[in-house]
Amino acid sequence: MKRFFKYIGFGLLLALPWPVLAEEAPLTEVAYILNTFSFLISGVLVMWMAAGFAMLEAGLVRTKNVATICLKNISLFGIAGILYYLVGYNLMYTGVDGGIMGSFGLWAADDSAALAGDYAAKYSAGSDWFFQMVFCGAACSVVSGCVAERIKLWSFLLFCVVLTGLIYPIQGSWVWGGGWLSELGFSDYAGSTLVHSVGGWAALTGAVILGARKGKYGKGGRVNPIPGSNLTLATIGTFILWMGWFGFNGGSALALGSAGSAIEQANVYINTNLAACGGMIASMILVQLLYKKVDVTMALNGALAGLVSITAGPAAPSPGGAILIGAVGGLLVVLAVPFFDKLKVDDVVGALSVHLVCGIWGTLAVPFSNSETSFLTQLLGVVAIGAFVSICSSLVWLAIKYTVGLRVSEEEEYVGSDVAEIGMEAYPYFQGRNIN
Amino acid sequence: MKRFFKYIGFGLLLALPWPVLAEEAPLTEVAYILNTFSFLISGVLVMWMAAGFAMLEAGLVRTKNVATICLKNISLFGIAGILYYLVGYNLMYTGVDGGIMGSFGLWAADDSAALAGDYAAKYSAGSDWFFQMVFCGAACSVVSGCVAERIKLWSFLLFCVVLTGLIYPIQGSWVWGGGWLSELGFSDYAGSTLVHSVGGWAALTGAVILGARKGKYGKGGRVNPIPGSNLTLATIGTFILWMGWFGFNGGSALALGSAGSAIEQANVYINTNLAACGGMIASMILVQLLYKKVDVTMALNGALAGLVSITAGPAAPSPGGAILIGAVGGLLVVLAVPFFDKLKVDDVVGALSVHLVCGIWGTLAVPFSNSETSFLTQLLGVVAIGAFVSICSSLVWLAIKYTVGLRVSEEEEYVGSDVAEIGMEAYPYFQGRNIN
Amino acid sequence: MKRFFKYIGFGLLLALPWPVLAEEAPLTEVAYILNTFSFLISGVLVMWMAAGFAMLEAGLVRTKNVATICLKNISLFGIAGILYYLVGYNLMYTGVDGGIMGSFGLWAADDSAALAGDYAAKYSAGSDWFFQMVFCGAACSVVSGCVAERIKLWSFLLFCVVLTGLIYPIQGSWVWGGGWLSELGFSDYAGSTLVHSVGGWAALTGAVILGARKGKYGKGGRVNPIPGSNLTLATIGTFILWMGWFGFNGGSALALGSAGSAIEQANVYINTNLAACGGMIASMILVQLLYKKVDVTMALNGALAGLVSITAGPAAPSPGGAILIGAVGGLLVVLAVPFFDKLKVDDVVGALSVHLVCGIWGTLAVPFSNSETSFLTQLLGVVAIGAFVSICSSLVWLAIKYTVGLRVSEEEEYVGSDVAEIGMEAYPYFQGRNIN
Repeated sequence: MKRFFKYIGFGLLLALPWPVLAEEAPLTEVAYILNTFSFLISGVLVMWMAAGFAMLEAGLVRTKNVATICLKNISLFGIAGILYYLVGYNLMYTGVDGGIMGSFGLWAADDSAALAGDYAAKYSAGSDWFFQMVFCGAACSVVSGCVAERIKLWSFLLFCVVLTGLIYPIQGSWVWGGGWLSELGFSDYAGSTLVHSVGGWAALTGAVILGARKGKYGKGGRVNPIPGSNLTLATIGTFILWMGWFGFNGGSALALGSAGSAIEQANVYINTNLAACGGMIASMILVQLLYKKVDVTMALNGALAGLVSITAGPAAPSPGGAILIGAVGGLLVVLAVPFFDKLKVDDVVGALSVHLVCGIWGTLAVPFSNSETSFLTQLLGVVAIGAFVSICSSLVWLAIKYTVGLRVSEEEEYVGSDVAEIGMEAYPYFQGRNIN
Repeated sequence: MKRFFKYIGFGLLLALPWPVLAEEAPLTEVAYILNTFSFLISGVLVMWMAAGFAMLEAGLVRTKNVATICLKNISLFGIAGILYYLVGYNLMYTGVDGGIMGSFGLWAADDSAALAGDYAAKYSAGSDWFFQMVFCGAACSVVSGCVAERIKLWSFLLFCVVLTGLIYPIQGSWVWGGGWLSELGFSDYAGSTLVHSVGGWAALTGAVILGARKGKYGKGGRVNPIPGSNLTLATIGTFILWMGWFGFNGGSALALGSAGSAIEQANVYINTNLAACGGMIASMILVQLLYKKVDVTMALNGALAGLVSITAGPAAPSPGGAILIGAVGGLLVVLAVPFFDKLKVDDVVGALSVHLVCGIWGTLAVPFSNSETSFLTQLLGVVAIGAFVSICSSLVWLAIKYTVGLRVSEEEEYVGSDVAEIGMEAYPYFQGRNIN
Repeated sequence: MKRFFKYIGFGLLLALPWPVLAEEAPLTEVAYILNTFSFLISGVLVMWMAAGFAMLEAGLVRTKNVATICLKNISLFGIAGILYYLVGYNLMYTGVDGGIMGSFGLWAADDSAALAGDYAAKYSAGSDWFFQMVFCGAACSVVSGCVAERIKLWSFLLFCVVLTGLIYPIQGSWVWGGGWLSELGFSDYAGSTLVHSVGGWAALTGAVILGARKGKYGKGGRVNPIPGSNLTLATIGTFILWMGWFGFNGGSALALGSAGSAIEQANVYINTNLAACGGMIASMILVQLLYKKVDVTMALNGALAGLVSITAGPAAPSPGGAILIGAVGGLLVVLAVPFFDKLKVDDVVGALSVHLVCGIWGTLAVPFSNSETSFLTQLLGVVAIGAFVSICSSLVWLAIKYTVGLRVSEEEEYVGSDVAEIGMEAYPYFQGRNIN
């Protein structure tokens, strides 16, 4: 494993590093507008990722659970918006001061200084809220696919309330809110850990507590593949996520009001794209070598793996470094999918392999191109956040399980959530084949 | 009912109001560029809503009419573009002067002043045209879903020509063109009335004159549900509309060239999002209480209801107020769908409940957060525009009905427009079930 | 034919011309930021076109080849990104100096001047790379649909490597890189020739060398129609392409940092939209007249035809001129589809009719509205690039054919690439009809 990291580090050294970026411009009104606009446009792109998750997951579940997964994905985004207003934002950003959480209370914008001509706030409060809110939604979207096809609709949404209102904002305060981890020097540019592995830990605990789908794991360790229902949806979902990721990582420069920040955003765009390319191509090649055929789902997950991997540090690596970081993510995802199956953790869409595994990898890879970070601090952050999210999520999953219940009945699982839980099918006019 | 409004008003008072926004910055070249760019990017997002309508409607009609509804939705956008150039823009914006319509004539840009260094026009003429044109297309998109599954293709497109060339621009001139309604103080920020309820009235008259689909209404007031063919399309259509709405409402700030306008856009983004969240969650809860199951279509329509509701005044309410305004919209849509069915108005996709009912509600809700408007003037505007659009639309629908014909034959309706009218199926390789 | 051009020219004269645009603003930091941001946002829109191509093509192939075409389209975009970094960019833009190609070598950004306060470079190097890279991907996307349903996956990807790494950049250097054709005065604003007809020539040679799909051409010149599997996907694909085209053409203004460039972008947006409208409506009318029914696929291709047609010169024509240019494209596509069938060139999605034919038409139409260009020089460029790309592509296709092989076996073609090549179906739960 050490040798493996050495090899990567060597590859990174070979590639040309980006120049160190200059300081912010003086805060003029134009810089204030540009920073604000960057948050808004980037935020729209991240909001769009909710649709990407919805389509990806709708394409990877079975036909009988498609309408339900669509509903879960759009309604979790609605919950995230409301909870982040009611609780989340202030818990994450107000009065953290090196501590472990902010304060409770409704969020409210105060742009009076800027309206009076003082632009020291850098951007409108609302644009910042909007941008941070869509990140909260993204963390929650990671969960839905992993626990799909057997979780009760309202129980899932209840978990989303706690995740977006409490768990996500508290751990987020540790780093982006200026809490204890950020003071130690932990660095996570756009959320390989804070968004993706957080969603991953929440999903992992949920998948374990829920148990696998009926029939997924046979006797003697046999794993029964359950194909996704619609690969065109999975494909457009991946394209949407890829597109949205430019806003996810690019907007995380948190500025556009200076040449330095514009250059930084451009470099982030390039690295984000190249990491996706590297992840996809690497996973395609590895799958071809291992299984003698390419696998569409794995190629898509390879692209997403590259994207998650670069997210912790998309500004610093060279383009070649970004390809390598993404490619390692693409390889990891190919190995992680059978690994989780070996553990009998039934992850319907591969969310753990993509968001959890590559989220960790991306966070640990930051020191290769960012000398202000250390591998140990990065590891500490991964472990601390992983422990916190896993424990809290487990408690919430278990509380739901032993009160309103978490899993649909065996019969409901057999007929599918669409008919059982919401009484409508996604494709009522199509005649189906019963391959599962 | 009065108590109902009081309650809402009270809720709005509780929530924190946005600060009053500052005046525009002096018109520099940079402000001119930013205003122009805001129109272009926002306009692209609104153009994208045409795709959202297409997918939403394709998902909610039966399989046998899917190809036709796709064709209608993309071609109506083509018609809107051409007609708004040939007639619409000048009819809506040129020489209205407190009157009831502008002038006839081809639109042409004149940016010579800006090119000579005088930026008093605030933005390029072309960017303004582009932004207004996509709104015209959106109004027309509202109609197609409501009258789907029984209207003749070319007859529908003929109606679109009149709607986008005459009806929409004339009523638009009354408010946004500086006509008589704007002089009375009627306020409609981004078009709850001017776009959404206009589309709604045109659709309502069309649905009444066309009559219901064969088999929709049985004997003794029985309503036969006709499920949509593809809920993933309906879901992505809703996500697209939600995404596009940031441009729809945000771009309607009509400026980005000052800190005040950037702050305003940010607040509009937040309120737009929260109204959608509120509408969706409210409709999900009400449907669960009423019917003991959640309904995907209703959740999607709830989100759209929230979006339509906030559109008349997205800048002024507090975030909490936006959630409430949207939530009321979400409740209204759940009640309106069976209401229209009771009247035997067959609205295939729920467009009347979303765009007409919530368009009215949103317009009437403006005075809660905007003290410069009055409930009576808002009501006057709703009624005047409703009457004008209903009368004109009825005349056009009837003229078409008694000349080239409006409705496909019974046999064509039975086999579906796809085979009958355009000779191709949307999904020729899939085997279908005949559930209707 | 001459009379035909005269007629078009006359139409163009009637329509009002855009004013000549002013010079660039002095290069301030703000202009540098705006130029950079324009590249990034426009580039995201063009990246999104890769998804548009994927959906369009997935909708127009048969069910049994859908997963494979999705995989091809997303992986070719990955290849384009990596190759354009490894070879393409420098081959196209570095040290061309009136010659026939640039230099070999990894691309690397150098923004040190701007970071030190010198903004003469106009925009960040990375934003320029990003914008040019997505164009390279678009050229490659044109090919995949034309040669679909019978080409081997890896063989196709191998061709993409050469196309994006060598063929596309070399011919691109002749014009956009400042090579010999640009010195002669050849003009191609956003790539009717450099992107679309290049993809078209590569696709044409591929389709000829591959041969037609089994069963497409019967005895006695009979052409068997093979319907697309999913017209909703084709529709959303077209909408995505239409949306992305605003970035494609608008971003090709290469600037946003002056009022003149903002005005230019606005005019480009308008013309791009109106050309699409003109192309779609013209093709719908012609198809109705010729075949007595409208054809969804042809309407979609008509819109795309209009878009390709305006791409060589979207800034100069008047809105009326843009409608005409697009409309001619829309008519051409209706005539070209049966023409290629007559030649037994089996173009699965109509890519040749759209991208090759209209790419040529659009390039030749530039002199109507741009007096600095000449018809002969435009023709020379079309022929030179067409010859170069055709010869190189043929050599590559043949080299692949006689080494690893180009075409799947007859049996694989019969069962479909999805099962034969990648071992998974796009819609495994749907029961299919065997209509081909």
